[in-house]
Parts: sequence; structure tokens; C-alpha cells
Amino acid sequence: MSTPLPPRYGAPISLAEAKRVMAAAEAECAAQGDWPMVIVIVDGASNLVMVHALDQAQHASIEVAQAKAVTAAKFRRSTKVFEDAVAGGGVGLRMLSVPNCCPVEGGLPLMRDGEVIGAIGVSGMNAVQDGMIAAAGVAGL
Amino acid sequence: MSTPLPPRYGAPISLAEAKRVMAAAEAECAAQGDWPMVIVIVDGASNLVMVHALDQAQHASIEVAQAKAVTAAKFRRSTKVFEDAVAGGGVGLRMLSVPNCCPVEGGLPLMRDGEVIGAIGVSGMNAVQDGMIAAAGVAGL
Amino acid sequence: MSTPLPPRYGAPISLAEAKRVMAAAEAECAAQGDWPMVIVIVDGASNLVMVHALDQAQHASIEVAQAKAVTAAKFRRSTKVFEDAVAGGGVGLRMLSVPNCCPVEGGLPLMRDGEVIGAIGVSGMNAVQDGMIAAAGVAGL
Amino acid sequence: MSTPLPPRYGAPISLAEAKRVMAAAEAECAAQGDWPMVIVIVDGASNLVMVHALDQAQHASIEVAQAKAVTAAKFRRSTKVFEDAVAGGGVGLRMLSVPNCCPVEGGLPLMRDGEVIGAIGVSGMNAVQDGMIAAAGVAGL
Repeated sequence: MSTPLPPRYGAPISLAEAKRVMAAAEAECAAQGDWPMVIVIVDGASNLVMVHALDQAQHASIEVAQAKAVTAAKFRRSTKVFEDAVAGGGVGLRMLSVPNCCPVEGGLPLMRDGEVIGAIGVSGMNAVQDGMIAAAGVAGL
Repeated sequence: MSTPLPPRYGAPISLAEAKRVMAAAEAECAAQGDWPMVIVIVDGASNLVMVHALDQAQHASIEVAQAKAVTAAKFRRSTKVFEDAVAGGGVGLRMLSVPNCCPVEGGLPLMRDGEVIGAIGVSGMNAVQDGMIAAAGVAGL
Repeated sequence: MSTPLPPRYGAPISLAEAKRVMAAAEAECAAQGDWPMVIVIVDGASNLVMVHALDQAQHASIEVAQAKAVTAAKFRRSTKVFEDAVAGGGVGLRMLSVPNCCPVEGGLPLMRDGEVIGAIGVSGMNAVQDGMIAAAGVAGL
Repeated sequence: MSTPLPPRYGAPISLAEAKRVMAAAEAECAAQGDWPMVIVIVDGASNLVMVHALDQAQHASIEVAQAKAVTAAKFRRSTKVFEDAVAGGGVGLRMLSVPNCCPVEGGLPLMRDGEVIGAIGVSGMNAVQDGMIAAAGVAGL
């Protein structure tokens, strides 16, 4: 039995699709009490498609959210996978020196028909909360 | 008689304000026949507030639009001023070596009550067309 | 009960305010026996407002002090928070790969009326000593 | 007769000397009607020694003033020399692609006993005005 391969990259997310993701993520921020997040959506090649910085988001989150989205797109998996690897210590610490790897929860791939079409990255509160908003965005696609 | 001073920076543009600018710019792209633009809005300190990349925009425009917006925010004037300086030749060519100066039409400050609260940068068609979309965005504020 | 939100960004620190912070920090350096520090003050958007490099400060400290100030402004908290996270090991090590995060004591936000108006970063001695000078600067505001 | 050599680098400017330069430059800004300048002083090796950003200076000037100071220190001459070279066209345009050369008036070496001990860079108004403030700073040494 052959090793399963990672998901393929598909045609890039459209702006219309990204707007649905963004709207769902923003709605969840509002529902949680106006969490001041930065929400970034990239296509499968890590090109910026949408950025919305909610009022009074910490400025650091602009680059952190982008780093999470890029990580999720370049590695085609949740950034939490890398956070867990770092948390586990030992060999997992190698991910701290891998290019384009931000090992903090809050970055998720965006899929269409089993293919990676982009990714969402969220930053602004703690990492678990960032991950909640990212998941809400994914659900909106 | 003292030299007139440049405009002041005001409180940063809100996401709600930026959404009005973006909607106006996107509407003008649609009206012109779906021009595939990247539209970037930054606050007065050049922090990203919104990015929308329309479908099939050239990838180069992601950074070019951002550079135009940053230039307009950091120098508090239209990027066309620098384009004209370069076009005039002679001493104007010095702007080619000034940090954070993208001397191409399509970047404009966003003003509220006479203060700079952000800037818009547009890239994707030719520079005059980029400037038309940027102006439409400004008018939407 | 909703999650408490982080402090807001306010209007940027003025040069007059920054001079008070700098004078207090320099005075503490002198009181401690002419500690050769680099002291950096940025506004809330991480723009440089003041830099004073005391005689014979190590050159590395110019960028380190700036990194600490930028971290404190971008994350709106003391850089010691990140130092402690790293020291704790496990998942806290993720901060080593977060953009714009210098996890070394010596960076503190500058507040006015409960809002972040800038930050101070100090480097030149050990991190605890750097933090003492930063705290003296904050007290001078 | 041998070719005259450029001035030598001397021991770096002290903070006390830099403060005299800065005070003179700031006083001239005030005298001119509160010109919103960024004033940067580096040592002969281009290390930052002092930065003062006057209130409401354009953000671009932080990097531009630093670029001018670094140019004046690295080449041990006024940045206006390079501006004139660019303005003259022809072979002078080569300076647009020389590293660490900002060819805009407003950067001047700081000399002590015929040796270069640092440089001042000023940005915020037009280049001639920037140069006036830089000259006032030099006179204050």
C-alpha cells in the first residue's frame, strides 16, 4: 500500500469565496465581543487575497496573521500541527528554524473539492481564540 | 511669512471607513469592465487595514499596490507627485533612490477633517487607470 | 461574561513626552554608574521617536533596543511576558518564531490615560538591568 | 604632487557632542516656524547615536533622514554632492544604483579636528530646507 500523498493544490480561491470566509470570521469576532483581530486570506501560492484589520487590533497581528496563513498554505495543514510539534520538545523544536513556518494556532488551509485553494490566518487574541475565528472562517467557505 | 506646513496625521482610518473606500474602488473596477486590480488601504502609519485582490490580478500588483499606499501615507501626498518629478528628469531623478518612495501613479492619501488618516494604493492596469480607481476609492470615503 | 480586550492605541507620544521618558532613563543610567545603554522610544505604530546611544554602548544594542521597543508597541505588553513564555519551555517556545517578537526583558509600553501611545526599549547591560532602565523611563512619563 | 586623500575617520562623536548638534538643529526648526523634521545623528561607522522625530513629521522622513546621515558618514561628504551628480545626468546617474547613497540634500558629515566623527541627516520639508537644518546642526558642534 502506497503512502498517502498530501492534498493537491487547486485553482486559487476567488475573491467571492474569500469574502464568504471573511464575513464568517468577522461575524464570529463580533459574536465573541468584538475581538480585535487581523484576518488574512491567501491563495494556495501564498499570495494575499484579502486582509481585514479590525479596529484596535495589535499591530503585531498584521504580520503574525499573514505568517500563519502563509504557513498553512505552504505546508497545506493547520499551524497547530507545528505548535504541537514545538510543544512536544525534542526533535519537534526543529520547526523553529524551518522557513515560512509560524508554529502558532490560528492558520488553516481552505479546501475546495479536496484541494487546497488558499489559507486563512488569524491573530489578535490568544492562540486558541485565534484558532476559533480561523475555524469559523473555514466553515463560511 | 512662514512656510506652510504639511497636513497632520489624524486618528487612524476605521475598518468601517476603509470598507466604504474599498467598495467604491471595487465598484469602479466593475464599471470599467472588471479591471483585475489589487487594492490596498493602510492607516496613516502604513499599517495594512484592508487588502482585496480581484480575481486574476497580476501577482506583482500585491506588492506594488502596497508600495503605492505606503508611499502616499509616509509622504502624505499622491504618488503622482513623485512620478512627475522623475518624469521631469534632472534633479527629480533623485527620488529613485529615496526609501519608501514608489513613484508611480495610483497612491493617494485618505483625509478626514484635513488630516491624513490613511492611504489607498491600486495596481493592476496601467498607472493612469490605477489612479482612476484610487480616486474612486477616495471619493467613497 | 466576555473576554477582556487588550488596551487601545491612543494618539502617538509627543516629542516633549518622549524627552521626559528619555531624561528619566538617562538619569537612572547615570545613577547606576554610567551604564552604557541604548534607549529607544517609538510611537504606538512602532515609528522611531527618539534614540539616544550612550557613549560606548555595544553596537548590537542599537538594533536590540529597537526590537524591544517595537515588540512592546506591536504586542502592547512588556517583552518580559515573552521572555517568561520562552523560559517556561513547551508551547511557550513558539514565540521564538513569531514575527516582531524580541523575547528579552527591557521593552515596555508607554501609556497615557490607559491607552498605548508608544514604547521604550533598552539594551546594553544584562536583561534585568535593561528592564530597570526601561521602568525608570516609564516612570518619567 | 600626490592626490589629496579624503578626511580620516576619528574617534566617534560622543552623546554630549551629539546633543549640541541636535539642540542647534531643533532650535533652527523652531525658528523657522516649527518645521516637522526628523533629525538623525550617526557616528562615523553609521551607528545611530541620536534620533529626534519632531511632532507630526512625515513618517517617510524617519528612514530618509537616516539614509542621508548614513550616506554622509559612509562617503564622508555632503549628500548634495550626489544630488548634483544625479541632476547633471549622464554618468552621474550611476549614483542611483550605488549602495548606501541617498542623493538628496540634507546629509552632512560632522568633523572634529579635521576628522569625520559622525554625520547628521535631516528630512521633513523640501531638500533645501532639510539642508538648512542640517547645516545649523553642524554649526552647533
